[in-house]
Amino acid sequence: MSFKGEQHPGVKAPTAESQGFRLNHTMLRVKDPEKALAFYTRVFGMQVLRRLDFEELGFSLYFLAKLGASEQAPEDEGERTVWTFRQKGLLELTHNWGTESQDDFAYHDGNAEPQGFSHICFSVPDLEAAEAWFDANDVTFVKRSDQGKMKNVVFVKDMDGYWIEVVQADRLAQLGD
Amino acid sequence: MSFKGEQHPGVKAPTAESQGFRLNHTMLRVKDPEKALAFYTRVFGMQVLRRLDFEELGFSLYFLAKLGASEQAPEDEGERTVWTFRQKGLLELTHNWGTESQDDFAYHDGNAEPQGFSHICFSVPDLEAAEAWFDANDVTFVKRSDQGKMKNVVFVKDMDGYWIEVVQADRLAQLGD
Repeated sequence: MSFKGEQHPGVKAPTAESQGFRLNHTMLRVKDPEKALAFYTRVFGMQVLRRLDFEELGFSLYFLAKLGASEQAPEDEGERTVWTFRQKGLLELTHNWGTESQDDFAYHDGNAEPQGFSHICFSVPDLEAAEAWFDANDVTFVKRSDQGKMKNVVFVKDMDGYWIEVVQADRLAQLGD
Repeated sequence: MSFKGEQHPGVKAPTAESQGFRLNHTMLRVKDPEKALAFYTRVFGMQVLRRLDFEELGFSLYFLAKLGASEQAPEDEGERTVWTFRQKGLLELTHNWGTESQDDFAYHDGNAEPQGFSHICFSVPDLEAAEAWFDANDVTFVKRSDQGKMKNVVFVKDMDGYWIEVVQADRLAQLGD
């Protein structure tokens, strides 16, 4: 696929070998799963699809989705694991046991040096309503929609300090022009 | 939603305010877009939906998706931007202009210290076929499916050193047991 007037350096045509590949999830480490899960379920309405514990290795994984109203994960644990790994666009939170009780422990957000990963992004139906909702939940803003050079783009922080971009798609038609 | 026998600390019930929120993308900074786009389009079959250039700020954004065979982005640029921000589970690659020509420049993968973000994950229909495809494209492995404690889980690196997990969903039914 290519689009008129848009240059995409390096792009190759897809082949049969990658058919059926699906971008399943993004994984972030979190210090305290109780705080992280409260935040993502309350503020962003996500649901925990599956928790997997690895006792020998000392960590737990939590797979979160923002499911549509008609979507429902299977009750059976094995079926639910398989179903989870077939989804698109999940968030996986990893808890290395014990970090939650270490006062000076914090993960690196990727925006301070050394840089790498920057953020995840949620698309919302109404940006002002979302900002009001974040305020009602005492969410920390990096920038509001009327601040900075990129208007209509909000950034907030999750409980570990990772940045979350929040946008309303139909207000971004002119972005980058 | 809750599941029998599975504890999810901190979880709150979703409210009306987060209805319609959607996890749109994950953003990673890349040193050289030509190399990064060649990798993600060739090896993982992704398509560039939209490129946005910010001349004043000195960066370009590339939004990539693994679309299904019947999915098609609009040709019109404004419509395509809006369409892109309504999707689920995209990958956004950011190129800060000039990094590609700096010999000693590299982004931080989040798995070396200081840790934070860990990886993105693709689900594939056939794990052995995917490993053979990675070998055919000289992709760097962090671990193969038969290595380490977590069998059936592959990790490779992209051109910036970010880790990509690769799994076959129906082989993970027993994961975490």
